[in-house]
Amino acid sequence: MTTNAPMTFDDISYEVADAIATITFQRPEVMNAARNQTQDELVAALDAADADDAVRAVIVTGAGRAFCAGTDISNGFDLPAGGDPATGEGVPADVGGVTVLRLFRMRKPVIGAINGPAAGFGATFTLAMDMRLAADTSKFAFPFTRRGIAAESCSSWFLPRLVGMQTAQDWMLTGRTFPATEALARGLVHELLPADALLPRARAIARDIAENCAPASVAINRQLLWRMLGADHPRVAHALESRAVAARLASDDVREGVDSFKERRQPRFTGTLAEADYMSAWWPEA
Amino acid sequence: MTTNAPMTFDDISYEVADAIATITFQRPEVMNAARNQTQDELVAALDAADADDAVRAVIVTGAGRAFCAGTDISNGFDLPAGGDPATGEGVPADVGGVTVLRLFRMRKPVIGAINGPAAGFGATFTLAMDMRLAADTSKFAFPFTRRGIAAESCSSWFLPRLVGMQTAQDWMLTGRTFPATEALARGLVHELLPADALLPRARAIARDIAENCAPASVAINRQLLWRMLGADHPRVAHALESRAVAARLASDDVREGVDSFKERRQPRFTGTLAEADYMSAWWPEA
Amino acid sequence: MTTNAPMTFDDISYEVADAIATITFQRPEVMNAARNQTQDELVAALDAADADDAVRAVIVTGAGRAFCAGTDISNGFDLPAGGDPATGEGVPADVGGVTVLRLFRMRKPVIGAINGPAAGFGATFTLAMDMRLAADTSKFAFPFTRRGIAAESCSSWFLPRLVGMQTAQDWMLTGRTFPATEALARGLVHELLPADALLPRARAIARDIAENCAPASVAINRQLLWRMLGADHPRVAHALESRAVAARLASDDVREGVDSFKERRQPRFTGTLAEADYMSAWWPEA
Repeated sequence: MTTNAPMTFDDISYEVADAIATITFQRPEVMNAARNQTQDELVAALDAADADDAVRAVIVTGAGRAFCAGTDISNGFDLPAGGDPATGEGVPADVGGVTVLRLFRMRKPVIGAINGPAAGFGATFTLAMDMRLAADTSKFAFPFTRRGIAAESCSSWFLPRLVGMQTAQDWMLTGRTFPATEALARGLVHELLPADALLPRARAIARDIAENCAPASVAINRQLLWRMLGADHPRVAHALESRAVAARLASDDVREGVDSFKERRQPRFTGTLAEADYMSAWWPEA
Repeated sequence: MTTNAPMTFDDISYEVADAIATITFQRPEVMNAARNQTQDELVAALDAADADDAVRAVIVTGAGRAFCAGTDISNGFDLPAGGDPATGEGVPADVGGVTVLRLFRMRKPVIGAINGPAAGFGATFTLAMDMRLAADTSKFAFPFTRRGIAAESCSSWFLPRLVGMQTAQDWMLTGRTFPATEALARGLVHELLPADALLPRARAIARDIAENCAPASVAINRQLLWRMLGADHPRVAHALESRAVAARLASDDVREGVDSFKERRQPRFTGTLAEADYMSAWWPEA
Repeated sequence: MTTNAPMTFDDISYEVADAIATITFQRPEVMNAARNQTQDELVAALDAADADDAVRAVIVTGAGRAFCAGTDISNGFDLPAGGDPATGEGVPADVGGVTVLRLFRMRKPVIGAINGPAAGFGATFTLAMDMRLAADTSKFAFPFTRRGIAAESCSSWFLPRLVGMQTAQDWMLTGRTFPATEALARGLVHELLPADALLPRARAIARDIAENCAPASVAINRQLLWRMLGADHPRVAHALESRAVAARLASDDVREGVDSFKERRQPRFTGTLAEADYMSAWWPEA
């Protein structure tokens, strides 16, 4: 069941069905390369998905044979420029990083369904997603050194944490293209699937979360894990988890969670994402 | 040889033999589910093991067919509650986190011998252990989202560091149960063994450390590695390691270590854990 | 083509050919064990490689059958000693850590070609390298607890980030020797090769970077990734990457990178490492 009318974009499509928002790159004629407008639309789509209580999970995929070939360089790197790199004064924000930081703040799981080549921004955009599924015909590249440019979209933070520093430096220093099998072996991708099984599998994971998990619990856990990745001591987790547990103990969901478990039935959680709003006081920018 | 009379607990047992303390969950009738008393007893047992110079390593396992089924919810989540989650005011400390932070501060290796199902706290309790061995029949779950509750026991800090964020979000957002083979493949578990080989293998690792390694060196290395996991730059390690090396160079152990190596014989270290006491000045809470 | 006359050292050799600097441990009669002089020479060789624009990558290997057997203990641990470990007052800097911090600051890829046994400093020295290739006959040990000493060379910071805490504690607490296959399976080593294929493979990776990647882009990416490994939030990466992208957009390299990509030919980058000098304002010690 489609719960919302599709939002209208040029470079992507956005639709909600069965509690899942699907964002699809829609410029197959340029391998779904991203221009500045694409970045704005991605942020707007993520905003929409995060604000809509009917959305329980988000899937990102590409139309045609590519996932996303990276920043559109048909007219060179058409990116905001200028300023002083040594001090940062007047330097415009990297546009991919703006999109990825929006993704980082999501309160809902985001699953990449990487249907084909993912290069540059097309690869770095996926790093703040919670899971990356890929077609066994996909391939990947972080080709920044080969283009004379540099790592972007916060990839220097995310990539070593996902695949370890050795693999991150291999990919980021050589800029070489590598196959889906290497992406799987090195931990970039969670599962490889035949192309036609990719979206069904992504939807099955999203449906499992939508049907069996409390929305506020999912939002809290997603944020806790991402934020604690930068915390210097487990006591930081102890403080925030104590508050999370206290918040959930005061909810109806926790009683339904226990009852449904004892009765060996599917839970019917009634709590909404608003029950996770108290988290907004945890972090300055959240 | 048993060096200490067993301490008496209700929910767990604690015994020391051959320089190894073994802590065993002892409520098989409820799959070793943990109540608040269990947490208190675990902390007391860890205190005892850490204070006893005759103990060189700790093994944690479960009686019966389960390792630990998590927090006992026979009467719902019977946990300390209340306070304001947004500010933290009046929020009680998560009890599992208190236990795990005690485990984190141990000066001796802790080895999990996961003999059967480990769910919720039964899984998160193991994350600050140094190694997890598991029976090939064991299974795991972090089912917090399915119960309407949230990540606890500092698991939001430990889990992504052990298995990477992608796997951590998979397990923590879906809350699904997964088999021992997946725990091994994703790095949660170090080795899988037939159930009857589990404790013998854990004991063999513990004996190797007890017989061949200097107690203060083991304590220093364990603490250094855990603490540096939260340090923002290798120069932090350089400062503390320089102090560790200086402390050890002043010990008799280092001479015995070199001599025994040259003579190709087992070392007879005479230094005690007291030689690592200077570390207590390193960290406020240590 | 050799672009520089070899520098003269006692314990190592240093030569530059085909844009690659090769540093070779040259005391095969003691399994390339490192004395204090060796550390000084390693720092000088890394300084030379970093300062020489003709050098695009560095390979480190060992003469004879060992890579490096660790700190030379023929006269015990002949290391600077003294001071108060509790406060740090008067404690000399760990010499291996000085070398590794120099390696950490390199602006060029460093590839370990581990031709045989790597133990103690011989293993920890490699941890700040970008990639470790190893002969399938090599073996590894972090034997500090067995010698009564402690982790050094910033290994307590690097090792858990490379192989995960579980494996790091296994190796650092037991101090046991393990084979190349385990080093590969746990992620310490990137590739295993027959001994005679090791240097050719390391050189092929280095040549690929030298021929196809912009020097300043490589320097920036290498530093960004290593530094962001210690950053507490992806917004730190966003700030520095924005500056990196702004710097590169102002370069000729980025135009050559795009043009060569569109023309499906090898790039001819004219930018030098000086284009990455603005980074020196980013971090106090850089």
